Amino acid sequence: MYCSAGALLRLWFVASIESLRLPLSAMKRAFFKNIECYADASELELDEVLDQLAFDVRGLLPVITQDADTNDVLMLAWMNRTALTETLISGHVTYWSRSRNQLWVKGETSGHTQELVSLSIDCDGDAILCKVKQQGPACHTGRRHCFYLRVHREHRKIYVSEK
Amino acid sequence: MYCSAGALLRLWFVASIESLRLPLSAMKRAFFKNIECYADASELELDEVLDQLAFDVRGLLPVITQDADTNDVLMLAWMNRTALTETLISGHVTYWSRSRNQLWVKGETSGHTQELVSLSIDCDGDAILCKVKQQGPACHTGRRHCFYLRVHREHRKIYVSEK
Repeated sequence: MYCSAGALLRLWFVASIESLRLPLSAMKRAFFKNIECYADASELELDEVLDQLAFDVRGLLPVITQDADTNDVLMLAWMNRTALTETLISGHVTYWSRSRNQLWVKGETSGHTQELVSLSIDCDGDAILCKVKQQGPACHTGRRHCFYLRVHREHRKIYVSEK
Repeated sequence: MYCSAGALLRLWFVASIESLRLPLSAMKRAFFKNIECYADASELELDEVLDQLAFDVRGLLPVITQDADTNDVLMLAWMNRTALTETLISGHVTYWSRSRNQLWVKGETSGHTQELVSLSIDCDGDAILCKVKQQGPACHTGRRHCFYLRVHREHRKIYVSEK
C-alpha cells in the first residue's frame, strides 16, 4: 500500500484528535483490558489501579460481601473512593450509605462489624468483592445474610428462607 | 390530648395529601420493610414481589453470581425486568449487557453457560443472588471467576490471582 507523506500526516492528525476525544470511561476500560493478559502473581501499584476504577455517575461501586469462613454471600452494598480507602486503611468494612448519604462503618452502632480478610476487584474494575469475618448477623433484619427471599420458579412463589 | 373534629379533619386531609406525594421508591421500600417480620417459610406471590423490585434509574439491578458447587463468587452483572423474567422462565442466566445495550444469555456464543440453581432477592429488593452450575470459565478473560485483582493492603499492591 502506498502512503504519501501528506496521507500519513492526515492519519496522524485524525488519530491524535480521536485520542483526545476518547472519553475517560473508554480509557479506564482500556486500562483493565490491558491487564487481562497479565500472568498469575503479576503485581500492580494499588493507587494506580484505584485511580482507574469505574465508579458510576454517583461515584459508587457495588460491593459483594462474603463470609470468609462459610463463603456465604452476606450482602450487597456500595463504596465510594473514600469508603474504599477507609476500608483498606482500617480493616473495618466501610460502605457509602445511599439512604443516609454518608459513610457507614458497618456495625458501628449495631456491633455487627465486618473485619476485612481480603478485597478483590473484578476484570472490568467496576465491582468489588470483600471477604470478611462477620460479627453477628449481617442483615439489618437480624438474619445471617440479606438474601432471604428465595424464588420458587415452578410454584411462582417466593419463600422466606435463609437457606 | 384533646382533638377537635376540625383538627382531626385537618390531620386526615394532610395525611391523605402526604400519601399521594409518597414517591414510588418509598412505597417499594415500605413493601420490603413490611416483609421483614415474616416468619421462615412464609410465602409471597412471585409477580407481586417482582413488581416491587427497586430497579435503578436505568431499569437495572445488580446480580451476584455464585458457583453452586464451590460457593465461589463468579461475577457481578446486571438484569432488567426482562432479563430476570427470561432467566426464571428458561433457567439459563440472562443479563442485560450495558456495553452492548441488549439482553445477554450468558454463554450463548462462548458456550460458558450458567444453569440456574437458585435465585434469591435481598431484604431491600435491590439486589439479586443467583447460584449456578457454571460451564467452563465465568470470566471473559478465560479465568474461573472475574475477581482476580487481589489487593495486598500492607504492600499497597494488587496481585493477579484467582485464589
